[in-house]
Amino acid sequence: MTAKFLDDLHPGEKFVSGGITLTESGIIGFALTYDPQPFHLDAAAAAESIYGGLIASGFQVVALAFRLFIQSGILAGSSMGSPGIDELRWFAPARPGDTLHAEVEVLAVTPSKSKADRGIARLRYTMLNQRREAVAGFIVNHLLLRRPAPGA
Amino acid sequence: MTAKFLDDLHPGEKFVSGGITLTESGIIGFALTYDPQPFHLDAAAAAESIYGGLIASGFQVVALAFRLFIQSGILAGSSMGSPGIDELRWFAPARPGDTLHAEVEVLAVTPSKSKADRGIARLRYTMLNQRREAVAGFIVNHLLLRRPAPGA
Repeated sequence: MTAKFLDDLHPGEKFVSGGITLTESGIIGFALTYDPQPFHLDAAAAAESIYGGLIASGFQVVALAFRLFIQSGILAGSSMGSPGIDELRWFAPARPGDTLHAEVEVLAVTPSKSKADRGIARLRYTMLNQRREAVAGFIVNHLLLRRPAPGA
Repeated sequence: MTAKFLDDLHPGEKFVSGGITLTESGIIGFALTYDPQPFHLDAAAAAESIYGGLIASGFQVVALAFRLFIQSGILAGSSMGSPGIDELRWFAPARPGDTLHAEVEVLAVTPSKSKADRGIARLRYTMLNQRREAVAGFIVNHLLLRRPAPGA
């Protein structure tokens, strides 16, 4: 896909990322460092939990959704980071063998009033599994460069 | 610290985690998998960015804050996961060599109306650096077990 600046994004526009298949090894490896709770680490304990088996850390699911969109390259020439995320929700467990992809919708585009070269795009990320069930959703406030003026 | 159930948490109560020192290797390793943007991966490009040098992925900072609190063991006997996070904000860059710790404040405790054994604790996490500058903050809605009735 083509790299986009702030001005190239329009509310309602949607992007679909590539997919990733979750593995037990990947889930346990992430959890051991970042989210060491039994239902992410210990298959026997997870089977006895309310989840009935190992599930991925929600932080891993969110970071993977972001990664999948970033690797599309759409923001490769414009991304300057982010001041924050709103309304992060985990809707359903993500398990070993599940294949996830992210769908990203442009909610709003707001040029900065103080800095002419940048602005904020609010993008709603939804992570879906192979049954098209929403697993997680969140809104990233992306700080993006505006398209440089011709001849600038 | 002692493990706590939902009923053991009270609004205004605060916890302080242990610390972690960020390394260039750890920052680049996380970013390569989860947030492959130049200011997290490429020290030369990062030096030319608005950050003036490599900074940690915000997703890594958030996951580390969660990890540091989880490893305290306070929720080890009660945590059942989370429906979501509100108001995630990144306030300042986190750089190689910075030492971060999490401070966690209980905002609200709400027993479930439909399930007598559990409820939601809203906890505000703040990640601070060695100068006590807030680096990131967010509110986790924790699903926690209530203290079992005596003799249950």
